[in-house]
Amino acid sequence: MSNLIETLNWRYATKRMNGEKVPVEKLAVILEAIQLSPSSAGMQPYTVFVIEDQEIKEQIQKVAFMQPQVAEASHLIVFASWTRITAEHLDQYINLIAETRGIPAESLDGFKTSITNGILSRPEEINAEWAARQAYIALGHGLVAAASEQIDATPMEGFDANGLDEILGLNEKGLHSVVIMTLGYRDTENDILASAKKVRRSQEELFVTI
Amino acid sequence: MSNLIETLNWRYATKRMNGEKVPVEKLAVILEAIQLSPSSAGMQPYTVFVIEDQEIKEQIQKVAFMQPQVAEASHLIVFASWTRITAEHLDQYINLIAETRGIPAESLDGFKTSITNGILSRPEEINAEWAARQAYIALGHGLVAAASEQIDATPMEGFDANGLDEILGLNEKGLHSVVIMTLGYRDTENDILASAKKVRRSQEELFVTI
Repeated sequence: MSNLIETLNWRYATKRMNGEKVPVEKLAVILEAIQLSPSSAGMQPYTVFVIEDQEIKEQIQKVAFMQPQVAEASHLIVFASWTRITAEHLDQYINLIAETRGIPAESLDGFKTSITNGILSRPEEINAEWAARQAYIALGHGLVAAASEQIDATPMEGFDANGLDEILGLNEKGLHSVVIMTLGYRDTENDILASAKKVRRSQEELFVTI
Repeated sequence: MSNLIETLNWRYATKRMNGEKVPVEKLAVILEAIQLSPSSAGMQPYTVFVIEDQEIKEQIQKVAFMQPQVAEASHLIVFASWTRITAEHLDQYINLIAETRGIPAESLDGFKTSITNGILSRPEEINAEWAARQAYIALGHGLVAAASEQIDATPMEGFDANGLDEILGLNEKGLHSVVIMTLGYRDTENDILASAKKVRRSQEELFVTI
C-alpha cells in the first residue's frame, strides 16, 4: 500500500480534539499545500482565514451548533470565497502572472480577453458558486496535507455561514464563508469516531470504467 | 521542504500529454485516494467515470473545445455529481454504515433523521450544488494522489457539461458532469507551460491570520 493511502486511511473527521497546538512547521506545510492548490484559470478566488485566537474560535463555535472540535482545535481554517469576480481582480492576476514569469502584461492580452468573456461576463451568482467550488479543491489539498503531517483535520459545512461572515466581517470584504477545516489532535478517549471503521462506497459503486 | 510540497510544486496543469499509458498500480492509488476523500455527511454524492477508451475520449474532446490533453491523456476521469439526493440514496448509505461497522441500521435512526431534515428536505438545486462541491474535494484528492505518483493531471472545467452528459448518458442516471481530470504524462517539448514558473498568490494576499 502506498504511503498516501495509509495516510488517508489514518485520517477521519475528528469530532473531539485535545487542544494541543499544531507546531508552526507543520502548519506551514498545510498552508503551503493550500496555496499551491490549482484553481480554475488559476485565479484562486478565495481568502483563507487562519484562526488561532481562542475567543474568536469560541464565537465561531456558537454559530457552528456548538460542535466541540471548533473550540478544541489548535487552528481553525475558514475558506471564504469571493462573492464577485471583478475587473480589478483580473488586473491583479494578470500583473501577478507577468511579474512571476518576467513577461510584459500586454503579452497576456489574449488570456485576459478570454477570462473577461468567459468568467467576468457571467452572472454574479454563477461566479460566486464557481469561486466556492475552487475553495473546495483547496480544502482537499489542505486535508491531504494535514494527514501527511499526522495532523487531524475535520472538514465542516455545519455552521451558519451568515453568522460566521458577521464574526469575521466578510461581507464588507466581498467574501462569503463556504467551508471550515479544524486542525489539531484527536481526543481518542472522548471521540467515539476515533476507533470507528471508515465507511466508503465500494469501488464497484463509485466508479464506472469505460 | 516536505515531500508533499516538492510534489505539489512539480505538478502543473498539463496542456499537452504524450499518450503514454498510466500503469494500473498507479491508477489504483489515484482511484483509492478519490474513494477515500471525505464528503459532507460522508455521502459521496457522485459517480466517477474512468475513461480509457480512445474513441470516447475523442468524442469528449469535441465538447471540450478540442483541448489536446483530452485525447492525449492515458485516462480521463469525469466527476459526475448526483442531480437529486433521494430517500433511496439515504437508505443505501445507512445500510452501508451498518454493514461496515457491524451495527443494526436502526441504531442510526437519529443520524438518518438529521440527514432527512438537514439535506433531503432542501430544494433540489441546492443539493445539486452541494453534491458538486463534494466532488471538488474528491478532485483535490485525485490531483494530490496523481502528483504523489508522478502522474500528470489537469483539472478542467472548460467543457460543455450538457454535451458531456449526453455522451455518457448521465441525465438518465441522475448524474451531471461537473469537472474533469486528465491523467497521463507531460509532453515537455510541445507544452509551453511545462517550463513556465508556477503562479500563485502570495501568502500575504491569500491568508489572514487571526
